[in-house]
Amino acid sequence: MKTMVSLEEASRLMSEMRQEIGTENVCLMDALYRVLAQDILAGENVPPFNRSPFDGYAMRAADLALASRERPVTLSVTEEVPAGHMPRLEVSPGQAAKIMTGAPVPAGADCVVKFEETREDGDGIIVSAQCKSGQNIIPIGEDIAKGTMIAPKGTVIDPALIGMMASLGMEDVPVYRQPNVAILSTGDEVVPVGAELTQGKTRNSNTYALAGALLAIGAKPVFLGIARDETEAIGAAVESGLRDADMIITTGGVSVGDYDLMQEALQKIGARAIFWRIRIKPGGAVLAARKYGKMILCLSGSPAAAMLSFHLLASPYVCRMAGRSRWQNEEIDVALKSGINKPSFHKRFVRGRLAVEDGRSVMITAEKQGNGVLDSFIGTALLGMIPEGSGPIPPGTRIKAYVTRAGNFEIGNGQLK
Amino acid sequence: MKTMVSLEEASRLMSEMRQEIGTENVCLMDALYRVLAQDILAGENVPPFNRSPFDGYAMRAADLALASRERPVTLSVTEEVPAGHMPRLEVSPGQAAKIMTGAPVPAGADCVVKFEETREDGDGIIVSAQCKSGQNIIPIGEDIAKGTMIAPKGTVIDPALIGMMASLGMEDVPVYRQPNVAILSTGDEVVPVGAELTQGKTRNSNTYALAGALLAIGAKPVFLGIARDETEAIGAAVESGLRDADMIITTGGVSVGDYDLMQEALQKIGARAIFWRIRIKPGGAVLAARKYGKMILCLSGSPAAAMLSFHLLASPYVCRMAGRSRWQNEEIDVALKSGINKPSFHKRFVRGRLAVEDGRSVMITAEKQGNGVLDSFIGTALLGMIPEGSGPIPPGTRIKAYVTRAGNFEIGNGQLK
Repeated sequence: MKTMVSLEEASRLMSEMRQEIGTENVCLMDALYRVLAQDILAGENVPPFNRSPFDGYAMRAADLALASRERPVTLSVTEEVPAGHMPRLEVSPGQAAKIMTGAPVPAGADCVVKFEETREDGDGIIVSAQCKSGQNIIPIGEDIAKGTMIAPKGTVIDPALIGMMASLGMEDVPVYRQPNVAILSTGDEVVPVGAELTQGKTRNSNTYALAGALLAIGAKPVFLGIARDETEAIGAAVESGLRDADMIITTGGVSVGDYDLMQEALQKIGARAIFWRIRIKPGGAVLAARKYGKMILCLSGSPAAAMLSFHLLASPYVCRMAGRSRWQNEEIDVALKSGINKPSFHKRFVRGRLAVEDGRSVMITAEKQGNGVLDSFIGTALLGMIPEGSGPIPPGTRIKAYVTRAGNFEIGNGQLK
Repeated sequence: MKTMVSLEEASRLMSEMRQEIGTENVCLMDALYRVLAQDILAGENVPPFNRSPFDGYAMRAADLALASRERPVTLSVTEEVPAGHMPRLEVSPGQAAKIMTGAPVPAGADCVVKFEETREDGDGIIVSAQCKSGQNIIPIGEDIAKGTMIAPKGTVIDPALIGMMASLGMEDVPVYRQPNVAILSTGDEVVPVGAELTQGKTRNSNTYALAGALLAIGAKPVFLGIARDETEAIGAAVESGLRDADMIITTGGVSVGDYDLMQEALQKIGARAIFWRIRIKPGGAVLAARKYGKMILCLSGSPAAAMLSFHLLASPYVCRMAGRSRWQNEEIDVALKSGINKPSFHKRFVRGRLAVEDGRSVMITAEKQGNGVLDSFIGTALLGMIPEGSGPIPPGTRIKAYVTRAGNFEIGNGQLK
C-alpha cells in the first residue's frame, strides 16, 4: 500500500483497476442519460427520397432557363403531392407538381419554387424567375446518409440523440447497465437524518450527498446505513456492500488517530489496500482498497472533504465503469474573479461557479470554503486547483479548474444572482 | 393575433401568460433536480457545539503562552472525548483533553493542538509551541449559523443541497409539482417509430426528441400520439391534451400552405391565437395560442426547427412554470471557432458546443446545420445567434450564444474527442 500519494498517482492507481459492466436494452423513453453500449449507425438514408423543404411547385429548371418578369413561363399542374404521399405522375416539360413541405419530389422535376413566388393562371401557374437544377430540393440521404455514425459507443444519450434514434426506427436502445454503488457511513457520532440530534451527534448527511452525486452521474446508490466504530461491524457491512453492489464508498474512519478503523476493518476481511492519504488538503484522507475485483473507496467523514474526494476520484472511476467514453474530469483555464487571501501550504481545491464575462472564462468562488459543510458545493461545478505552496493569490489570476460531473452546471454571465 | 414577430416579442408575449403550479413534499432521495418551493433556512447551528477539526488535544492557550522547544509545557490529560460523545470534565489550567475529529470541545479549553504536534509523557503530554485562543476550533454555527438562508425558493436541488438538507434533519422537501406537458404530432406523413416506413412516410421522431427535452428540464411528457391532417382530429387531440396536462406542444401544420391546419383546428375549438411566425429561420414557423389558461405551442414538423423553437421558447416557459427562479436561457459571449461561409438573410441560430481555450469561451459549431435532422443538436448546448443580414463570418468573431437547458452540457477544452 502506498501512502501520501499525489492526486495524479491516486487517480492512476485507481485507473489500473478496470471494472466492466454488462449491457441491456431499454426502450427509447428510458434511454435519456444512459450510456450507449454500441455504435449507432444510420441503417437507411434520411430522407429516403428527394424531398421538398417547403410548400410550392416542383418543376424542371430547364423550363425556366429564360424566365423573367418580362417573360414569365406558364406551366400546367399535374397533381398535388401532400406530405406522406407518393407522386403518381412524372413531371414532363411544361409541367409542375404542387408539392407540400416534406413531400417526395416527383420524377422529372429537379427544383422546387416556393408557393409565394408563383401566380395562379387558370389551371396552371406562372413563374417569373429562373431556378437552378437541384435548387430547393433536399436530396436522398442529405440529413443522414446510410452508414453514417450517428453516435459512438460510450456516448451519454441526450434528448436530440433520442430523437435521432426514433427517426431511425429504434424502439430499443443498447446501453450499459447502471453501476450499483453501495454507501456506508461509519462513526459512533453519526445518527440517521430523522433521528433526534442529541449532544455530540451529527446527522448522516454524507450518505445522502453521495447518493445524490451518484444519481447525478447515472449510478444507483445502495444504502448500507451507518456502522458503529467497531471493526467487525464495519467489516460485515463492507462485505454485504461488496456482495450487493459493484463498488462501495464509505465515509469516516480514515484519518490519523485512534478511532480510525477503516484500515483495520478492511485488513480483517482480507481486502487489499491500494493507497492511503493524498497530498491535498482538504480531501486528502482517502483509503482505497479492493476485494473481489471491486473498488472500496473510503472517504473522510467530513462532508466537504468527502464530496471533494468524490468529485476528484470516485466520479471518474464510476463514469468509466458506467461505460462513458468521456469519464475523466474536464480541465479548463479560468480567471479567479476574487483573490484568495490565505496562502496554501498544501495543494487544494476551491469550489465555485463558471461564468463567462466578455468572452473569458471566469471562476466565481463560493463564499465559504470550510471543510465542515457542503455550502460551497451548492450551485457550483468547478474545483479550482491551487498549487502547493501558493501565497495569497490576486484577483484575475488564471488557474486550472476541474469541471465536476456531479456538480451543478449552470453558467452565469457574472451578472445574474 | 400578431404575425411575423421578433423572437423577443414572441418571448414577451408568452411570458405575459403566467401558469402557476402546485407544490408537494417529496422524500429527500426523490428531491434531486426538483425545484424548491420554499426558502430553506438553517433551523439550528452547525455544529451545535465548538468542535475539533482533527484528532488532538484540547487545552488552554494561556497555558502555552511561553511554550517553546526549549521550554516545553507539560499538561495532564483529563479524559478522552471520542466523536459522538460529550465531554464529562472541564479543562482547568495545566490540563488537556484528548479529543477526536468532530468531537465537542470541553468547557475551559480554547484551542486544539494536533496529536502529531504533542509528545506523550507518562500520563500527560508535552507541548512545544504556542497556540492562539480559538485556534483549531470550529465554533458553534461556523458551518451554518442558525437562521442562515441555505437555498431560496426556486432553486434546482443538486446533490450538495441534498446533503445539506440531510444535515439539517429534513427527511421531506417541499418542491413544486412537475409540469405535465402533452405532446402531439400531426401529419399524414408521420408514422409511429416502430412502424414500417412505407414510401413517403416519416417516423415520429419529434415526439421522442421533445419528450426527452422535457424530461431533461424536469417536466413530465404526456403522449397524445399522432393526429392526421384533419382539423377535427387535431382539435379533439388538443382538447384531450389540455384536459390531461398543464400545457401542450404540437408539431406540424404551422407553415404557410394548404395543409397547415393548426390555426384552423385551434380556431374551431375556440382557442385564442397569440402569435404566428417569428422572424428567425429556421424555427420561425411557430403558432402560440391559449385555452383554459393553458399554453398551446405549435412547432414546425421539421425536427431541427422544432427542437430549436423548443429551446428558444418552450424551455423558458416550462422552466418558469416549474417554479425555477432562473428560467430564461443564459446568454454568453463566445468566439466562433470556425467561420460561417454563407450570409444569413434572416436572424438564425447555429448549434454548437462550448469549449474553453486559453481562458476564452469558444463555440465549436456542429458540422451539419441542416433543418431536417437533429444531428447538430446532439452533444451540444449552445445556440449561437447570427444577426439578420449578416454576411459571411470569419473565424474568431465574437457572437452571443444562448445556453440551452435541455441541451448536452459538457465543456470540452477543444482538444478532447
